[in-house]
Amino acid sequence: MTARKRGRPGYDLESLLAVAVSVFNERGYEATSMEAVAKRLGITKSAIYHHIDAKEDLLQLAVDRALDGLFEAAEQAVAEQGRAIDQLESLVRRSVHILVERLPFVTLLLRIRGNTEVEVKALDRRREFDRMVAGLMRRAAEEGDLAPGVDPELGAKLLFGLVNSLIEWYRPARELDAEALADAVCRTAFDGLRV
Amino acid sequence: MTARKRGRPGYDLESLLAVAVSVFNERGYEATSMEAVAKRLGITKSAIYHHIDAKEDLLQLAVDRALDGLFEAAEQAVAEQGRAIDQLESLVRRSVHILVERLPFVTLLLRIRGNTEVEVKALDRRREFDRMVAGLMRRAAEEGDLAPGVDPELGAKLLFGLVNSLIEWYRPARELDAEALADAVCRTAFDGLRV
Repeated sequence: MTARKRGRPGYDLESLLAVAVSVFNERGYEATSMEAVAKRLGITKSAIYHHIDAKEDLLQLAVDRALDGLFEAAEQAVAEQGRAIDQLESLVRRSVHILVERLPFVTLLLRIRGNTEVEVKALDRRREFDRMVAGLMRRAAEEGDLAPGVDPELGAKLLFGLVNSLIEWYRPARELDAEALADAVCRTAFDGLRV
Repeated sequence: MTARKRGRPGYDLESLLAVAVSVFNERGYEATSMEAVAKRLGITKSAIYHHIDAKEDLLQLAVDRALDGLFEAAEQAVAEQGRAIDQLESLVRRSVHILVERLPFVTLLLRIRGNTEVEVKALDRRREFDRMVAGLMRRAAEEGDLAPGVDPELGAKLLFGLVNSLIEWYRPARELDAEALADAVCRTAFDGLRV
């Protein structure tokens, strides 16, 4: 609220983005007008257009924040060398951290449906990420580390289905930090709930 | 399209519900007007109100279809006696079948946010279901069948996070039927992906 740009009172782009993404997540991106975002911020629409050209710019910034984080996580996991199953576990652990740190951005990413150019490109990048996970799964199977009877493609979908499902209920809290959450997800997905 | 009621040409309630739920899932329940549903059906709004009193009646029918299925699954699983971990596995297996058979209804259920009375009640029933799953998890832990270090409450959230995530990508297909999907989900959740 205290950030200023060119001497104007108001929000900086980062705070504007945070508020916009929270309104998008509440009401849906498409259903949210810039009028509604301006109202939440308590500023005029033209004060928003001081920072961006269109609503889609906010969406672009938000989904890139999520996707860049996930792709960085993938690069770091694969750079660790070693067996594919361990890279997968590292990727899941890192992805949980990204999810926790960038929860509103990842939430928005996982809810878009491809109705605009920005959304179509974001869904393309998601598919690229999913293919990369499926590739690691196939390599884990070749290396003999995947449980027998687990189809690598299906296993990849279930694994990231589990990770992505966190957005439905996880809210940052002191009782359950990102590392404890990542432990629980990895234990469940890789070792199973049963003794 | 050929069903008739009181001699009027048009849809029966079941087909009307199916179309309405598919429009709700595409555009969001709140954002969908009865005008839009009527347009998709190619009939007038008053022809819809021949079957129901309000848009919320359609939501009620849809979420009950999903919730009744899940609660029946729970009753059947618990009636099997035996160890809690096996009842949990049976519940997951049955829930996957419900999800596959009632995919549009479950999808709608999992996306509502509690903005109307029908939604608030549906969310209450969801929480009741989640508490029942958490109870089974705690019993599985007491019986020594839950992997060490798995918190029962968190495990319950992850388990049904995984099951519910199926709505994001599963589309009924001959290559992967409900039983094969249920096998893969149970194997992943209870035994883990790693050899």
